[in-house]
Amino acid sequence: MKYCIGIDVGGTTIKTGIFEAEGRLLKKWEIPTRKGDGGTQFLKDAAASIREALQELSIPMEDVLGAGMGVPGPVVANGYVEVCVNLGLHKCYPAKLLSEELSGMKVVLGNDANVAALGEMWQGAGKGHGSLCMVTLGTGVGGGIVCEGKIIPGVHGSGGEIGHVRVEDGEPEPCNCGGHGCLEQYASATGIVRVAKRKLAETLRDSAMRAFGEQLTAKDVCDCAKAGDAVALESIRYSMRKLSGVLAHVAMTTDPKLFVIGGGVSKAGTFLTDMIEENLRDYTRLIDDPDRRVVLAELGNDAGIYGGAKMVLEA
Amino acid sequence: MKYCIGIDVGGTTIKTGIFEAEGRLLKKWEIPTRKGDGGTQFLKDAAASIREALQELSIPMEDVLGAGMGVPGPVVANGYVEVCVNLGLHKCYPAKLLSEELSGMKVVLGNDANVAALGEMWQGAGKGHGSLCMVTLGTGVGGGIVCEGKIIPGVHGSGGEIGHVRVEDGEPEPCNCGGHGCLEQYASATGIVRVAKRKLAETLRDSAMRAFGEQLTAKDVCDCAKAGDAVALESIRYSMRKLSGVLAHVAMTTDPKLFVIGGGVSKAGTFLTDMIEENLRDYTRLIDDPDRRVVLAELGNDAGIYGGAKMVLEA
Repeated sequence: MKYCIGIDVGGTTIKTGIFEAEGRLLKKWEIPTRKGDGGTQFLKDAAASIREALQELSIPMEDVLGAGMGVPGPVVANGYVEVCVNLGLHKCYPAKLLSEELSGMKVVLGNDANVAALGEMWQGAGKGHGSLCMVTLGTGVGGGIVCEGKIIPGVHGSGGEIGHVRVEDGEPEPCNCGGHGCLEQYASATGIVRVAKRKLAETLRDSAMRAFGEQLTAKDVCDCAKAGDAVALESIRYSMRKLSGVLAHVAMTTDPKLFVIGGGVSKAGTFLTDMIEENLRDYTRLIDDPDRRVVLAELGNDAGIYGGAKMVLEA
Repeated sequence: MKYCIGIDVGGTTIKTGIFEAEGRLLKKWEIPTRKGDGGTQFLKDAAASIREALQELSIPMEDVLGAGMGVPGPVVANGYVEVCVNLGLHKCYPAKLLSEELSGMKVVLGNDANVAALGEMWQGAGKGHGSLCMVTLGTGVGGGIVCEGKIIPGVHGSGGEIGHVRVEDGEPEPCNCGGHGCLEQYASATGIVRVAKRKLAETLRDSAMRAFGEQLTAKDVCDCAKAGDAVALESIRYSMRKLSGVLAHVAMTTDPKLFVIGGGVSKAGTFLTDMIEENLRDYTRLIDDPDRRVVLAELGNDAGIYGGAKMVLEA
């Protein structure tokens, strides 16, 4: 039996999973992300916890095919990280550093959103597919594109970085990235709220959303829309149309058969995916395939560790 | 010495080239595209002309690594063609048919715009690059995306099909594809003229373009703009902004370092590529790379045969 390891490094915790090469998750755990030493501290911690877990499962190092790690920042094809603010990484090859801590184990690196997309393809909503586009609607909008089994990392590590394409000219508020009019400003959890508040300010119409005041959340917007609130429905439709427009570009660029929607916002369910699918069909009439689908992600927060493990098998 | 063959099948002629595997073009020729027999006629003609040329060059069949063929329609990864209107193809595997005509020679198939992109990467404007996006601005807008040396064909054969992404809501005129507001309606040669004529109709301002009347061409629009005509400049800027917006999506999806502009319109030169590059920089501020460039194609009508030959080496 051969094994592989998936590691999902976040700004707060490091999630790790040990998998059978066939895809069964044997053990997963989390440790805090200790920053410092130019990012080497958390790699040492990750390595130590992996050694411990392997010992516990009586898996000898030589039966481990390798480890795949996702980090929250741009990673170019050769594993180089120019800068990863959340982890304090700067001009380094984290996979090489982790490999040194693990007696030369094969370690591969990817951007976390890209890695999660690969995870969903392997054992989640994309099982059986070779190509897909995954979108994570959370505080921000993350994206990952897999094409014939491989992550598209991009020359600058911006592969699948669809949260930061401009979808609106003349947006006065800046995006976190410094740009203006990025998809993230309309379709992330915060973006959905921003759009709804703007709609409320622009209209005198009554809306159930008004009761939430400043505390309005993306979930509230979706719940009100589902309950038939007209302003909420217009608002979420606007947000999802922006997202669908970007996915239409993906459809005419890498042309997958499956779009997977994950992240906190996706808890609104098929209400959202149906809306996106309808828009997408309208936007890409050249592709007449009733089997092309927009579906909900299935692996939740585990997508990253699944994808990391699969990356080892694909490398 | 090993050789490979590139074939570019158009609706009127079939261009073929025999190359050394290192990339030197030894001989190229054209024959008419005879339709009929469900598309098998032109494949028989192509095979016969290839046998003849190989004999003339004294190249034995066993020294030929294979042939790569581009066709004007969607081709999925396994070489299947659902329909190719221009060639009368319908639900077939043209590469398999050609291979049978050539004693089992390895034959691979791609969409012509995708294959041209690969050709420019191999021996044209993209030499030395592994990833690029090529756009052909002719009667239509063709696109091809190459990622780490491989064409992205797409699950439906719509990889790189950027001419038909919607860039404008509420466009009253239909595109050739049946959609409304496709990039092709603004940035192709015909699109550029359409935009200019619309601008002229909307304004009372004087413009040198008025002298051309109904006969106005994309070249006239570019020439007038270069000469400082304000309406022409606004018009071509509008067209190129639409194109740049789509390329920005590519930049945040497959993230190449190079964009190559070809086709008849590209004869307007760096006037256009500079404009596109400036817009693109504005649209994708997250990618801060002064070496990412927008350049003119170099192989002209030969890009397809170069790409076909290279496809053999990549397969």
